[in-house]
Amino acid sequence: MTNTLTIYTYDWVPGGKGSPRGYVRDVRLRWACEEAGLAYTVKSVPFKDRGPDHFAHQPFGQIPFLQDGDISLFESGACLLHLARKSEVLMPRDPQGEAETLEWTISALNSIEMVSVPWWFIGLSGTDSNPLEQWMMSRLDRLHDVLKTREWIAAGRFTVADIMMADALRVPKVLDAATQKFPALRAYVDRALARPAFIKAREDQIAHFAKADN
Amino acid sequence: MTNTLTIYTYDWVPGGKGSPRGYVRDVRLRWACEEAGLAYTVKSVPFKDRGPDHFAHQPFGQIPFLQDGDISLFESGACLLHLARKSEVLMPRDPQGEAETLEWTISALNSIEMVSVPWWFIGLSGTDSNPLEQWMMSRLDRLHDVLKTREWIAAGRFTVADIMMADALRVPKVLDAATQKFPALRAYVDRALARPAFIKAREDQIAHFAKADN
Repeated sequence: MTNTLTIYTYDWVPGGKGSPRGYVRDVRLRWACEEAGLAYTVKSVPFKDRGPDHFAHQPFGQIPFLQDGDISLFESGACLLHLARKSEVLMPRDPQGEAETLEWTISALNSIEMVSVPWWFIGLSGTDSNPLEQWMMSRLDRLHDVLKTREWIAAGRFTVADIMMADALRVPKVLDAATQKFPALRAYVDRALARPAFIKAREDQIAHFAKADN
Repeated sequence: MTNTLTIYTYDWVPGGKGSPRGYVRDVRLRWACEEAGLAYTVKSVPFKDRGPDHFAHQPFGQIPFLQDGDISLFESGACLLHLARKSEVLMPRDPQGEAETLEWTISALNSIEMVSVPWWFIGLSGTDSNPLEQWMMSRLDRLHDVLKTREWIAAGRFTVADIMMADALRVPKVLDAATQKFPALRAYVDRALARPAFIKAREDQIAHFAKADN
């Protein structure tokens, strides 16, 4: 196989307490490639000075973005669905299995992260009354009901939807909430994070950012 | 063509000031079907008493969900991408055009709505200090930069990404913000909402809910 996949991430992100290292969203793409055995390289764009070339590939100045031959695309969710078309390991090929993988990938992005990410962001201020608290807990509660009876979220097997969902749920504050109230949800995250492909993807990301400290 | 597409929405939503009529998310699916000339029917599930069958199709108790023959799927974004595979009107078939449609559909869901929906929700309380205000304005500002030079958001033509993006941006409070500060963004929404397919989809939805008032 010709190696044409390049994952772009920052050259560096801050280390220390509360560091995003291990959580930066390029880990989702690394994880998918590791699961599927897709060859890939990782390249960097500056974290501190984000130039026009970066914004041309990612209009919000974020990462990751993916280069696949002539095609460049951004949004980790879009990159995962793009990669899923390259390997049945990431998404089944029957129409029902494909539909389930698609709906749960989008659900992680728009039913979970749409609440959990701003909930987390507002929580950074240390407020005692997060206006998204009730909404957040009701979403996790509903998801918990689903995960009580499933090993993986879609199509009866591991798919890119699990990469998206588990990565959304493993954010420390979210995982704390899950651990306290939603045991099946916590067990699901633990199952996903025990996969060798995730462990390698996370370690590689941490090493990538640590190298830039020198 | 055999009519196998069924869009599920609520049987009724409240009318009057601040009513969601015309904005309920089944309008996205109606709009896509109208653009592509795909035959569809609309069926209802109770708004007030959401039963196990509803949660079996939509685990968060929301709508829309879509039935396509034997396949059932939820999340408006997933339904749009599913419909996009049925008609080139909704998404080009070349790999670059498909990638752009995918990335901007996801971007509307996870870069815009992930901020705009909780920003809108928090604003309902009438607070003067919305903790998401700065984040929201920076997202719209970046999107405005993109839309200054484009008629449509992806692939140089109208796609499902425009249905998602324009529907995210036409929420009244969001549109007010766009009108004040981001003229190209406002002009983009106006272009999208002038399309006959949107006008019919919106009117049909309003009539559907109004019928249940009797």
